[in-house]
Amino acid sequence: MTSSDFKQLDGRIFPRFAGIRTFFRLPLLQTENDFEKADVAILGAPFDGGTSFRPGARFAPEHIRSMSALGRGYHPHHDVHVFHKLKVGDAGDVSIVPQDIAKTHTQIKEHVAFLLNHKCLPLIVGGDHSTTIGSMQAVFEHYGPMGVVHFDAHTDTYPPAWGCDIHHGTFMRLGHERGWFRPNDVLQIGIRGPFSSENDLKVPVDFGFNVVTVDDVRLSGLETVKEKIKAIGNGPVYLSFDIDCLDPAYAPGTGTPVPGGLNSWEAFQLIRAMAGLEIVAADMVEVSPPYDVSGITSLAAVSVLSEMLAVIPKQCSSYL
Amino acid sequence: MTSSDFKQLDGRIFPRFAGIRTFFRLPLLQTENDFEKADVAILGAPFDGGTSFRPGARFAPEHIRSMSALGRGYHPHHDVHVFHKLKVGDAGDVSIVPQDIAKTHTQIKEHVAFLLNHKCLPLIVGGDHSTTIGSMQAVFEHYGPMGVVHFDAHTDTYPPAWGCDIHHGTFMRLGHERGWFRPNDVLQIGIRGPFSSENDLKVPVDFGFNVVTVDDVRLSGLETVKEKIKAIGNGPVYLSFDIDCLDPAYAPGTGTPVPGGLNSWEAFQLIRAMAGLEIVAADMVEVSPPYDVSGITSLAAVSVLSEMLAVIPKQCSSYL
Amino acid sequence: MTSSDFKQLDGRIFPRFAGIRTFFRLPLLQTENDFEKADVAILGAPFDGGTSFRPGARFAPEHIRSMSALGRGYHPHHDVHVFHKLKVGDAGDVSIVPQDIAKTHTQIKEHVAFLLNHKCLPLIVGGDHSTTIGSMQAVFEHYGPMGVVHFDAHTDTYPPAWGCDIHHGTFMRLGHERGWFRPNDVLQIGIRGPFSSENDLKVPVDFGFNVVTVDDVRLSGLETVKEKIKAIGNGPVYLSFDIDCLDPAYAPGTGTPVPGGLNSWEAFQLIRAMAGLEIVAADMVEVSPPYDVSGITSLAAVSVLSEMLAVIPKQCSSYL
Amino acid sequence: MTSSDFKQLDGRIFPRFAGIRTFFRLPLLQTENDFEKADVAILGAPFDGGTSFRPGARFAPEHIRSMSALGRGYHPHHDVHVFHKLKVGDAGDVSIVPQDIAKTHTQIKEHVAFLLNHKCLPLIVGGDHSTTIGSMQAVFEHYGPMGVVHFDAHTDTYPPAWGCDIHHGTFMRLGHERGWFRPNDVLQIGIRGPFSSENDLKVPVDFGFNVVTVDDVRLSGLETVKEKIKAIGNGPVYLSFDIDCLDPAYAPGTGTPVPGGLNSWEAFQLIRAMAGLEIVAADMVEVSPPYDVSGITSLAAVSVLSEMLAVIPKQCSSYL
Amino acid sequence: MTSSDFKQLDGRIFPRFAGIRTFFRLPLLQTENDFEKADVAILGAPFDGGTSFRPGARFAPEHIRSMSALGRGYHPHHDVHVFHKLKVGDAGDVSIVPQDIAKTHTQIKEHVAFLLNHKCLPLIVGGDHSTTIGSMQAVFEHYGPMGVVHFDAHTDTYPPAWGCDIHHGTFMRLGHERGWFRPNDVLQIGIRGPFSSENDLKVPVDFGFNVVTVDDVRLSGLETVKEKIKAIGNGPVYLSFDIDCLDPAYAPGTGTPVPGGLNSWEAFQLIRAMAGLEIVAADMVEVSPPYDVSGITSLAAVSVLSEMLAVIPKQCSSYL
Amino acid sequence: MTSSDFKQLDGRIFPRFAGIRTFFRLPLLQTENDFEKADVAILGAPFDGGTSFRPGARFAPEHIRSMSALGRGYHPHHDVHVFHKLKVGDAGDVSIVPQDIAKTHTQIKEHVAFLLNHKCLPLIVGGDHSTTIGSMQAVFEHYGPMGVVHFDAHTDTYPPAWGCDIHHGTFMRLGHERGWFRPNDVLQIGIRGPFSSENDLKVPVDFGFNVVTVDDVRLSGLETVKEKIKAIGNGPVYLSFDIDCLDPAYAPGTGTPVPGGLNSWEAFQLIRAMAGLEIVAADMVEVSPPYDVSGITSLAAVSVLSEMLAVIPKQCSSYL
Repeated sequence: MTSSDFKQLDGRIFPRFAGIRTFFRLPLLQTENDFEKADVAILGAPFDGGTSFRPGARFAPEHIRSMSALGRGYHPHHDVHVFHKLKVGDAGDVSIVPQDIAKTHTQIKEHVAFLLNHKCLPLIVGGDHSTTIGSMQAVFEHYGPMGVVHFDAHTDTYPPAWGCDIHHGTFMRLGHERGWFRPNDVLQIGIRGPFSSENDLKVPVDFGFNVVTVDDVRLSGLETVKEKIKAIGNGPVYLSFDIDCLDPAYAPGTGTPVPGGLNSWEAFQLIRAMAGLEIVAADMVEVSPPYDVSGITSLAAVSVLSEMLAVIPKQCSSYL
Repeated sequence: MTSSDFKQLDGRIFPRFAGIRTFFRLPLLQTENDFEKADVAILGAPFDGGTSFRPGARFAPEHIRSMSALGRGYHPHHDVHVFHKLKVGDAGDVSIVPQDIAKTHTQIKEHVAFLLNHKCLPLIVGGDHSTTIGSMQAVFEHYGPMGVVHFDAHTDTYPPAWGCDIHHGTFMRLGHERGWFRPNDVLQIGIRGPFSSENDLKVPVDFGFNVVTVDDVRLSGLETVKEKIKAIGNGPVYLSFDIDCLDPAYAPGTGTPVPGGLNSWEAFQLIRAMAGLEIVAADMVEVSPPYDVSGITSLAAVSVLSEMLAVIPKQCSSYL
Repeated sequence: MTSSDFKQLDGRIFPRFAGIRTFFRLPLLQTENDFEKADVAILGAPFDGGTSFRPGARFAPEHIRSMSALGRGYHPHHDVHVFHKLKVGDAGDVSIVPQDIAKTHTQIKEHVAFLLNHKCLPLIVGGDHSTTIGSMQAVFEHYGPMGVVHFDAHTDTYPPAWGCDIHHGTFMRLGHERGWFRPNDVLQIGIRGPFSSENDLKVPVDFGFNVVTVDDVRLSGLETVKEKIKAIGNGPVYLSFDIDCLDPAYAPGTGTPVPGGLNSWEAFQLIRAMAGLEIVAADMVEVSPPYDVSGITSLAAVSVLSEMLAVIPKQCSSYL
Repeated sequence: MTSSDFKQLDGRIFPRFAGIRTFFRLPLLQTENDFEKADVAILGAPFDGGTSFRPGARFAPEHIRSMSALGRGYHPHHDVHVFHKLKVGDAGDVSIVPQDIAKTHTQIKEHVAFLLNHKCLPLIVGGDHSTTIGSMQAVFEHYGPMGVVHFDAHTDTYPPAWGCDIHHGTFMRLGHERGWFRPNDVLQIGIRGPFSSENDLKVPVDFGFNVVTVDDVRLSGLETVKEKIKAIGNGPVYLSFDIDCLDPAYAPGTGTPVPGGLNSWEAFQLIRAMAGLEIVAADMVEVSPPYDVSGITSLAAVSVLSEMLAVIPKQCSSYL
Repeated sequence: MTSSDFKQLDGRIFPRFAGIRTFFRLPLLQTENDFEKADVAILGAPFDGGTSFRPGARFAPEHIRSMSALGRGYHPHHDVHVFHKLKVGDAGDVSIVPQDIAKTHTQIKEHVAFLLNHKCLPLIVGGDHSTTIGSMQAVFEHYGPMGVVHFDAHTDTYPPAWGCDIHHGTFMRLGHERGWFRPNDVLQIGIRGPFSSENDLKVPVDFGFNVVTVDDVRLSGLETVKEKIKAIGNGPVYLSFDIDCLDPAYAPGTGTPVPGGLNSWEAFQLIRAMAGLEIVAADMVEVSPPYDVSGITSLAAVSVLSEMLAVIPKQCSSYL
Repeated sequence: MTSSDFKQLDGRIFPRFAGIRTFFRLPLLQTENDFEKADVAILGAPFDGGTSFRPGARFAPEHIRSMSALGRGYHPHHDVHVFHKLKVGDAGDVSIVPQDIAKTHTQIKEHVAFLLNHKCLPLIVGGDHSTTIGSMQAVFEHYGPMGVVHFDAHTDTYPPAWGCDIHHGTFMRLGHERGWFRPNDVLQIGIRGPFSSENDLKVPVDFGFNVVTVDDVRLSGLETVKEKIKAIGNGPVYLSFDIDCLDPAYAPGTGTPVPGGLNSWEAFQLIRAMAGLEIVAADMVEVSPPYDVSGITSLAAVSVLSEMLAVIPKQCSSYL
């Protein structure tokens, strides 16, 4: 488990069901030196205090590490071996505070800032979608306004709830209010209703976001959506993937599932279209293992992480 | 929980995981006055005595109520807020008799008749598909012959079994024999084999029904099927949705699942095509919670109920 | 569902799997008048924000309501029909704030105070064990210092964690610090290790509490423990039952299970020994339905609630 | 799978997870000759139409066959190899009628009568507890009034429900009314409350039955109960074992579980005390596989069947 | 259960949840005569010793038999009743050796050879994919080089692992090395990454195999793939179906699931295109029941077996 | 995760659901120096190739690590903090060979020998019970003949099966045949039937072993069994704990469960009696996570490991 080489434990030598679980059986980043050498750090943010329905996302980093024992490195579409292209390591978990959402976001922000300062692209595994607030703040403070490709069933531009300004459905509103985005470079994919009110769809459009519903994906075709992704302008881009953009058949293990979603293959195709964008950070959120079945949700998350790693620019550390 | 206003409990005030479970967090219809004011009453029919394989549908009303805590009212495709358009309430459950299918159907019939007499459109949540017999009889006695849009893996025109004329696969045969239908306005969608014999497909066609298999949906396209739906003639229409029209990946929690089914999104698209039909009653049957996983089947049922509510005519009470 | 008579829905008339779920199929307390007439109100407190390991207790009120459909009223040991002895109703759920433990406790406190002010003995169904803080504060403000019978695997006298003074393992420390208890009338039953340090057992003893471990129960016998319960002095007593006092075989659905616990029968026997104490409030906490299997944990909780109702004094409203 | 020798498939030759599932990997009784040679026939009665809460017992014969692959024949307490002592075979399942309880009981009765007429002691695997009505009627018609050892959480002397005289909680009342019993030789073990009313316990006592509650078992000791069993008079005895006599921790997979029950070891001890009684038939009912976890309920049922086989008299066919 | 007529137990006479479980409720082949009369024998090969991640496939024959109680015979696409066209029986399970892969393959080989020698087309239900080695060897020794239609997420042309030349990902490499194939008539469908290295895809192509990825299926269309299937040359063809060619949403119960797979309907369509090929043997492998949910994976396997039976040539025994 | 201090990650600083999973949140032993300083090394042996029924024990080390996040160090009975008394670390997993039982045992043997040579007491987490063969051989080669305290439902002195001399029920026979034991110091606890034949119980007695059945434990009392444990003579003792000594209610997640077993508390009491014995190695085997529910079996295993650590002599490294 030394990080000297950033290689996966080989499943043909050491069986995949054996060994300490790290993301993709990669080395654990432990020393200052490890972080300096790494190109990408996968960081767990096991917090679910912002959840409005089913909790459990606090166990997502553990279970995604577990299923990532099946994760391999060569991506045929891009013809690249992601762990040869990039030095990737497991950065462990942020020490979050279960019942204090503000302190938790500070902890996440500082951890992500540490990675950015070490020229390590952060790949964060939540946790609920409020964890993105901490990550995005760090990215904003490092890079300034960003484009966003946001996969989700929900727009997450929702108002406060129960008197709380922050919960797991607010990061896109808060980011907008705080000036973190280049609004015309914000794309929300997988959105679907029913909604609480017509406002739910109007707000992001008023913010300048480009909302792509599942109806749009299916009725106008994947190619049309890929074009929208490719049309995102220059500058840093944050990729945030809420597993509930997938249909509950593909991702039952999540807190607020919505039927009528994307299938895994569609999501993979769309992430592939991000090749060439200046991705500076990415996250994978809202996997809730207590509601998963046979690990299929965690495994879908592993595949999404693979797709992300394949489109993270080879030269990512150069502009970090 | 007063029904004075027919509003949902607001999830941004009262968390969705809290509170007594009623359908869509709507008021419970308790008084004569409640029923008179309501446009639509959602009624549970928790009976599974007609099941030929896996039982459990008796728990469907409870579990669909539970997952409907996630149900919202604004439907973007139709641009309508269903709970503003219609006054909807929860009518509780019929007091069925677990081991007496005939008495149960009488109970259901009388309960549905009560609703119809109060100008309340009945939206019945079974129960197995034999519960539709009670509901349809009430509708027939109120309106006369009806068109039917029937989503199912099975045609339910099957012969008696084990010496019993009535079981959960017979309502379409019985309805036909009793003259409840306008046969040319009967559409069966999602049908697929293998079958017990070639007769299984021949019988409904001989009855004059229009059978649309999953192969038809996929090979001729959704638009073609939508056209068939829209071609249904004037007059009252009954919408019966057996959750097993969906593939087991989308609806594992059912009694007689059949692989190779529709996905949720396809089903939603097809229900949307019913806008404009004179829907006078609808039901959602065959969800079996003991076989569900993480509530995805119940949740798919909730989404179907939302789609149904969105196509129930605004003026439904006018012609009731 | 009118509360005029405080009777359970009869399972031999209306099947137990049918109907809106309320605690024990009792009427929902809806009007001022209902609360005034009731002797006991069962109140849900669906909060799990104080949990240190597995969340999910937010769904306990729903699932305990569900399994309480099997709950009956005649208790043979005490030869009493609890729902004849006492007018009991379902008070619904407190509107808690998922990510704000302080506001949540205020909400609970006010709700419980409302019950006490209406001479309604509160029987609270958590939620995690931090919910007891809100309940106990209301009881303290109403009655002054109380005795406590506390069933638990843990002493809950633990120090702050992650910089937070309040979490689900602190109510007995906080109560002690705030002077809520008559320490010599505090009994903790079911405690077992291993512990974080020897301090875990020393602290409650230093507080003056009487700690009864599972070893004590098994090695000195149930009768000895019953004597300790009966020796509790005059004055108001709070009964707090953490389901994890039971062995995980009997209560898998909980957040921080500890093997080597009591079995259900032992727990019931011990609660029976409380007959004659001046119980003024009781709670049942830490059931976590996502980790339950076949509802056995929720059902054990239902049985505990039955045992509680049987020892709640007939004249409870007289000294309330 | 020929029944020529009545031997189990040997697990050290043919792995226990392989092969067609029959009870205890015993031969399937197929011909007239097979039934004539067999001493004991294990017969499935897959009916759950009499269930008042959770269904699923229709799948019990399948799942008990499955777990009985682990069943072995040498019983150390009695120092007997049951499959050497007795020629035992699998008689398949009765062809029941899912929604017709009366026809089903006739089918069971005729099947059991067939076994008795072939001098085959019937060991029936339900099915819900109403299936015992069919079995007992056959036994009564063959032998006349019988003693009964009845393990159950419930007395099953309950009144009609939902207007139906027969359901899964009535066989002991019906048997009494029809004169099937020698009431002073009826022992009910494992009974526990709470009950619907004090009548629930009074009725069986008025019938002359000996009711042994779990409190009796635990507080007076196993030996005292064993004495009661041994005190049963001469004459045919029917042994009926409802799996819900066990605590839900040991038998979660059942329809109406009651906490505070026996553990498996206690039940086994008590069955052992039946050695020497003139057992003429036995059944194992109310296992509900959809609610089982990891097969532990079915496996407990297998162990109970083993205990039954060990106390079935060697000369059973002699007085049949 | 006599095999005189090769008919299924009729579900309208004997309920589908009742009876000894054989494949499709077909007779068990027990005598020499049975095998001589049968056209097709379905044989279980319950071995999972070659698995590299999640075990459990040893229980696949049992669970597929269980769910095949729902299997019917009339296939509407081909307009054929498979059990009228072919005499099909259940051949029981091979007596495998759990920890000896070589002996197991010998056992399977001999069992399959026995079937072939009796002019019985073998339909083998694994077991992990290493079981195909035994089956294919028997087929090769009987027929010589074969074409292969291989549905799988993996190419199974992988190198040795942990020093073992044979494991569940090697049968296509071993078969190639041993000259069992007509390489240009080998089609691998459903393949997808990521892979361990670019070699994983290069090796089968170097062998001359035709690799069809899920991207190929979706982007070039089902018709294109069907053409490739139909283009397979004359001569014996082996059809091997690894359930993990399906997406984990459709087949969670498998050992090494890979997201982004085919859905059931697509797989059925592709098997249909095999009508006319000279199929001489087929298998269905890698169903792992401990990881299945509500039987949907086993049920998908049952549907695949039905599709296989529908394309097995009517005259199959003629050229056997 | 440095091992400099052999301290657990503190759950009041870093939440227990967060972080890389090691046994008891202890440091991972990575360098030669780590092993030299450690007193006890907990080693995973993830092999289940010797299993005769349900597989899955290969995932036990992962899941026991996961649940050991709840494991604490202070043991009140012994008044000792095990992680202060002993320097304990996680030694990772042996690289086993899934389908080669002989190579696997060599791998385990060498790994355990490495630990013994570094004066590290091995605490091995299997894997099925065949893994003990590798461990015991290393212990025998290091120490010579040993006493054994063996908790199990089975004697594991069984003959070969399916032609294989070694499987998961043979280690006590093989150890005896190879002279590894001081037979009079061998105690087998928790044994219970039914058995395949009377031989199953006779063989270990003939070997000179002391067999304590569950009947013995319950009928003669815990104290009697404790005396037998304390009577074990001087010299090295191996403690082997098969989780199936517990009743399936307490340990559903195992391969060959047997009803009527010990409860957790009894097992803990008995291990405590081993204080003072010269324990030189211990293992915990046969946990099968795919069959576990809510982690209760893995958690019971964690508690057993705690009990083991508490009786491992403080000076264990002195005589190693």
